[in-house]
Amino acid sequence: MPRLSLKGKQMPESPIRKLVPYATAAKAAGKKVYHLNIGQPDIETPEVALNAIKNLDRKVIEYSNSEGYASYRDGLAKYYQGVGIDVLPADIMVTTGGSEALIFGFMTCMDPGDEIIIPEPFYANYNGFATMAGLNVKPITAKIEDGFALPPISEFEKRITDNTRAILICNPGNPTGTLYDQESLEALAAIVQKYDLFLFADEVYREFCYEGATPFSAMNLKGIEQNVVMVDSVSKRYSMCGARVGALVSRNKELMTNALKFAQARLSPPTLGQIASEAALDAPQEYFDHVKEEYVQRRNTLVDGLNAIEGVTCPKPAGAFYAMAQLPVDSGDRFCQWMLEEFDFDGETVMMAPGSGFYSTVAFGQKQVRIAYVLKEEDLKRSVEVIEAGLKAYPGRTL
Amino acid sequence: MPRLSLKGKQMPESPIRKLVPYATAAKAAGKKVYHLNIGQPDIETPEVALNAIKNLDRKVIEYSNSEGYASYRDGLAKYYQGVGIDVLPADIMVTTGGSEALIFGFMTCMDPGDEIIIPEPFYANYNGFATMAGLNVKPITAKIEDGFALPPISEFEKRITDNTRAILICNPGNPTGTLYDQESLEALAAIVQKYDLFLFADEVYREFCYEGATPFSAMNLKGIEQNVVMVDSVSKRYSMCGARVGALVSRNKELMTNALKFAQARLSPPTLGQIASEAALDAPQEYFDHVKEEYVQRRNTLVDGLNAIEGVTCPKPAGAFYAMAQLPVDSGDRFCQWMLEEFDFDGETVMMAPGSGFYSTVAFGQKQVRIAYVLKEEDLKRSVEVIEAGLKAYPGRTL
Repeated sequence: MPRLSLKGKQMPESPIRKLVPYATAAKAAGKKVYHLNIGQPDIETPEVALNAIKNLDRKVIEYSNSEGYASYRDGLAKYYQGVGIDVLPADIMVTTGGSEALIFGFMTCMDPGDEIIIPEPFYANYNGFATMAGLNVKPITAKIEDGFALPPISEFEKRITDNTRAILICNPGNPTGTLYDQESLEALAAIVQKYDLFLFADEVYREFCYEGATPFSAMNLKGIEQNVVMVDSVSKRYSMCGARVGALVSRNKELMTNALKFAQARLSPPTLGQIASEAALDAPQEYFDHVKEEYVQRRNTLVDGLNAIEGVTCPKPAGAFYAMAQLPVDSGDRFCQWMLEEFDFDGETVMMAPGSGFYSTVAFGQKQVRIAYVLKEEDLKRSVEVIEAGLKAYPGRTL
Repeated sequence: MPRLSLKGKQMPESPIRKLVPYATAAKAAGKKVYHLNIGQPDIETPEVALNAIKNLDRKVIEYSNSEGYASYRDGLAKYYQGVGIDVLPADIMVTTGGSEALIFGFMTCMDPGDEIIIPEPFYANYNGFATMAGLNVKPITAKIEDGFALPPISEFEKRITDNTRAILICNPGNPTGTLYDQESLEALAAIVQKYDLFLFADEVYREFCYEGATPFSAMNLKGIEQNVVMVDSVSKRYSMCGARVGALVSRNKELMTNALKFAQARLSPPTLGQIASEAALDAPQEYFDHVKEEYVQRRNTLVDGLNAIEGVTCPKPAGAFYAMAQLPVDSGDRFCQWMLEEFDFDGETVMMAPGSGFYSTVAFGQKQVRIAYVLKEEDLKRSVEVIEAGLKAYPGRTL
């Protein structure tokens, strides 16, 4: 049998997925499992998007253009202009989810051996995309006691070497829910400019900012217009993760020209997903208002509930729909597995993502878990009760 | 402005796409352009697949499993068993088109600097996928005078070095339409086994074999069960290229485990495309019978028509829906561009893919073009007339 690649061996296993067999076993054993481990919202996809699919008026499901349908790119440009991001259709390439935008963006801007700086905890799949592109991830730890704010710029500067090619941020952030303020972003822009780096900005949670907070897009940072690459997706905005439609956005024309070559090799982003995404652009403002209100309530239920448990610390997120909580346990990995394998509270348990998987630094985030508040309030309320009971019963508790 | 990656610069521009601006200009100038440059069939998608989309009964377009829906993988396994390929659902991972199966397959099996042997002319995007994975492509030229048959095994053996990790074949072949016989494949299997290589078999044109010819799947080669990776796709089978649903198939469990890590990083293949693909499994046999009959007629019209033109050689393909033709011209690249830019025959012209783009060896295939017989017979008949007139008028003709 031929040996397999080192790359495949190095590919990290997703921390979101690695407990799946335990969850499957728990369900097989008759337990009810609340899934707070993955950002799959139960929010309905806008009706206008579902209707576009149901009213499909085609005889052949053809390829679209490699850069996406022109009509969709036009619509996207208007959407961005509407949220204060001044871009043209030519600055937008439609991708197969935000995932592909990151993979193509990384490969367009960096070569194997190059370094990318990412504040941690970060979306775990960034590791996988970096591995695919052969990049070395250099983490900077954001602290739970600071509410996971952007680490001081001096910390970024310390990590810049001759091989550093980019900084990647997620704003509002997964897994922390932190929203970076304009001042922090402008300080970041200054070192991006000073060292002539790329700034990748994953802004897929743009719509999910709470209590009047407004996101400041990296696309609006002055002086680094040619350095910024924005990654976007319809997955969360319209609760249609399965559409697999994202976008790579940059005003750097040479970058977009090279990125298009990767897109051409894979021919086309999904046609059906694009039809739904284009229709979703017409989702009414009430859709977002309702969704936002729902998430604020969910967040409050979850985060206030968690903080009321002895020994639990959970900063209140200003955006996205995740929270990182520190628990009074020996290991988040073991606790999350134990919750599925050994524990139930009246036949129910909770699946969470162990926090360590969101840190690149070994042994960091060991007591943390990521919780996605993607279930309805009553389920979240119950989940908090189950977690509280679990923490009381867990043999590895540290209180 | 930061410098971009070498990889992005090295990414080949698609030979199928690079004439697009000339075609756009030709259309803007009022010419009718017959598109024989790309494998986008005009055949209708099976009604059962379109209906599954129109009858969508979901409120949320959610992620599927990273390896694809279990029900679809079960259905696919039955489909493969029905065409004589004995695989289990666990041997199948659903991918975003055959493209992603190749990218993930390459990255799972090979590391940057490794070599992959591919008979040329080959599907041009293999170059792009190899570049993404950092691989070196080692071509072996199949000859037009042999009908692009599999080159002698001795030629493969000559190219095997310490860095050779895999051989890639496409059967039935794009761009040649050649169907490899069992004997040739068994000879290939012997050296795959001898040097313990991976054998990638792109079999997406399985359904398109003509006049009783039956494809022999690499999955049925004895003694290399752990070495074979089959790449598949619904794009051509059901004429739904835009669904972006393919599959990576292998009985090598460790390989599938590692491949799944790449799939998990990008979360999920397209949900809507999978719904259509699963429904398409129920397309009636008449659908394929009709399609096959249609393609035989198209092939005959095109290939017989081309061979009747003075100085043109075009082997008759036994499968797929492409033909490589040798033309009496100085350069296929220049001729194809000239046809769009300078020529029309009563207001009409033809877009073809220059043959050189399907060769990895520099300056090979210069007089060749690839023609996809994906249009209806009457359009193909007309296309042949336009090509004949073009060849008479072309200043660089060599007759």
